[in-house]
Amino acid sequence: MTARRAMLDVLKGEPVFPPPLWMMRQAGRYLPEYRATRKKAGSFLDLCYNPDFAVEVTLQPIRRFGFDASILFSDILVVPHALGRDLRFEEGRGPLMTPMSAADIDRLDGSNFHQHLAPVYATVRRLRAELPQETTLIGFCGAPWTLATYMIAGHGTPDQAPARLFAFRHPEAMERLLAVLVDYSAQYLIRQIEAGADVVQIFDSWAGILDEATFEALCVKPVAEIVRRVHATHPGVPVIAFPRAAGSRYSTYRAKTGVTGLGLDWTVPLAQARELQAGGAVQGNLDPLRLVAGGRALSEGVGAILDALGAGPLIFNLGHGITPDAPIEHVEAMIRQVRSYTGR
Amino acid sequence: MTARRAMLDVLKGEPVFPPPLWMMRQAGRYLPEYRATRKKAGSFLDLCYNPDFAVEVTLQPIRRFGFDASILFSDILVVPHALGRDLRFEEGRGPLMTPMSAADIDRLDGSNFHQHLAPVYATVRRLRAELPQETTLIGFCGAPWTLATYMIAGHGTPDQAPARLFAFRHPEAMERLLAVLVDYSAQYLIRQIEAGADVVQIFDSWAGILDEATFEALCVKPVAEIVRRVHATHPGVPVIAFPRAAGSRYSTYRAKTGVTGLGLDWTVPLAQARELQAGGAVQGNLDPLRLVAGGRALSEGVGAILDALGAGPLIFNLGHGITPDAPIEHVEAMIRQVRSYTGR
Repeated sequence: MTARRAMLDVLKGEPVFPPPLWMMRQAGRYLPEYRATRKKAGSFLDLCYNPDFAVEVTLQPIRRFGFDASILFSDILVVPHALGRDLRFEEGRGPLMTPMSAADIDRLDGSNFHQHLAPVYATVRRLRAELPQETTLIGFCGAPWTLATYMIAGHGTPDQAPARLFAFRHPEAMERLLAVLVDYSAQYLIRQIEAGADVVQIFDSWAGILDEATFEALCVKPVAEIVRRVHATHPGVPVIAFPRAAGSRYSTYRAKTGVTGLGLDWTVPLAQARELQAGGAVQGNLDPLRLVAGGRALSEGVGAILDALGAGPLIFNLGHGITPDAPIEHVEAMIRQVRSYTGR
Repeated sequence: MTARRAMLDVLKGEPVFPPPLWMMRQAGRYLPEYRATRKKAGSFLDLCYNPDFAVEVTLQPIRRFGFDASILFSDILVVPHALGRDLRFEEGRGPLMTPMSAADIDRLDGSNFHQHLAPVYATVRRLRAELPQETTLIGFCGAPWTLATYMIAGHGTPDQAPARLFAFRHPEAMERLLAVLVDYSAQYLIRQIEAGADVVQIFDSWAGILDEATFEALCVKPVAEIVRRVHATHPGVPVIAFPRAAGSRYSTYRAKTGVTGLGLDWTVPLAQARELQAGGAVQGNLDPLRLVAGGRALSEGVGAILDALGAGPLIFNLGHGITPDAPIEHVEAMIRQVRSYTGR
């Protein structure tokens, strides 16, 4: 039970030595066993919606590295998919959807939502049964704003101009869209918790691209409402949010959303991260490219985080997902270094 | 002389009502007269290196809108070009260079640097002669780190992974590259000042992508050295730097680099911007998509900036370059709103 308690202890604000450790996108292409299962599964969505495959790839990094936490293998876009939007993944192009107009918002159809996502809930149940007792199981969803960026543009863009412009031109339509996404995302997280998730994480990958007023309206407000609803049903379950690139806005984001843990991207200076620990656990924030480079770039990066944040409530993680070109030996070196940290 | 003094007064830390106003990329594709000249010129580089064309497009937004400042029309990549790296622009793909290896650094050749850039200096001289006396003339260069990202990758990328990885793998080579770029960039700015630029601006578009240690080494240190060299020769000339997406690091960046004015991207909250004004002038920071949207999105965005920052030393600007789809009527509406601000 030690390690499982450890991550939950940290999320209560209590430092643990060594800090619990996992990696965003730890079930991924840098692992040969993942690539083998991916090949067998066919499409990326087949991997997400088939519990046999999804359980297998979720467990792979736990078997290999013994991470303290396991995150459900899925994709944030299954939520709009379950609301009737089309979705496909093309090799090298990422997710593709039909771009959405303001008129499409009233056509979102949640009548089949939980049936559509039944394989995800089955995956969570099987994971909780198959994972070692000491491994924390993390469920997740995308934040409403980040989902909206893909739904409106129909694909990833470097600066989410289509969704930002939509919000400026049609503020009421954007509010309606976010309200639908808040509602279903909260239900989705609650079902994952009821299927066995110990913690849930909300990924807001595009939080950092907004100006002050839109950050407040499109990121802070919807996430605060999801947290409120999850905690109304399951008050003891920690919610981590990751408002990537929120910069100087991380502290007001934490205060206003009421999240338990705060995911930090790699650009957050460590003095700021230490201040954020005063409000509760932080999770992060190694530049994933230090893991690719290895050597001194890796050991100095890991060391700086442990030195600055190890004495407080820290979940060691990358500041973004691991990249396919990260060598496995470097992951092993990072784990050894984190596990050798015993406080000071 | 009023408006010219106004921008220089603001850069001394003195508020001016209404605040001086210009737009990043104000000579650009949103203007029909720019598109006409661009067509005549041939390639984008022909536009940069031909003083007739470069002067013409620089003057166009001044004639049309009477902005308080005019920025030399050129491109940040003329500096690596003048050091012997190849450079071309392809329609819809942006700049393309041959990707650079560590071994190429010692082959950078500055023996022809100032001859190569003579058309730029000629453009600056002609601009100062042809601009209205009350218009401030801004020269500029790219920051060494941002130049390095293009030189190493050979093209723009969404996250500058090639240059970040290069810095982690070859820190000494990166330091050597930045030292060369610091040296020539400082010379380049000094020559622009001697040709008639009143102010110079350093664009560090990719500052925000780095972690704490690399931000310090690759952004802060090189820019501080450029500022030191420019001020050693021309102590009275203001230097503005724009470390885009620097988030919570703007204040230490200002303190450590010694820049006179600080360009703020649109994600900087206005309370933070107001704190930054205590250290001197700030420039920014309207989301350029508010200019595309117009209407309430525009007037509320402009109003919020004026309310929060108008009483301090402010150069009103966008938080990034104007986009080609921005309607001219919206630019006019923004100018009217800024010019009607008389303090409070």
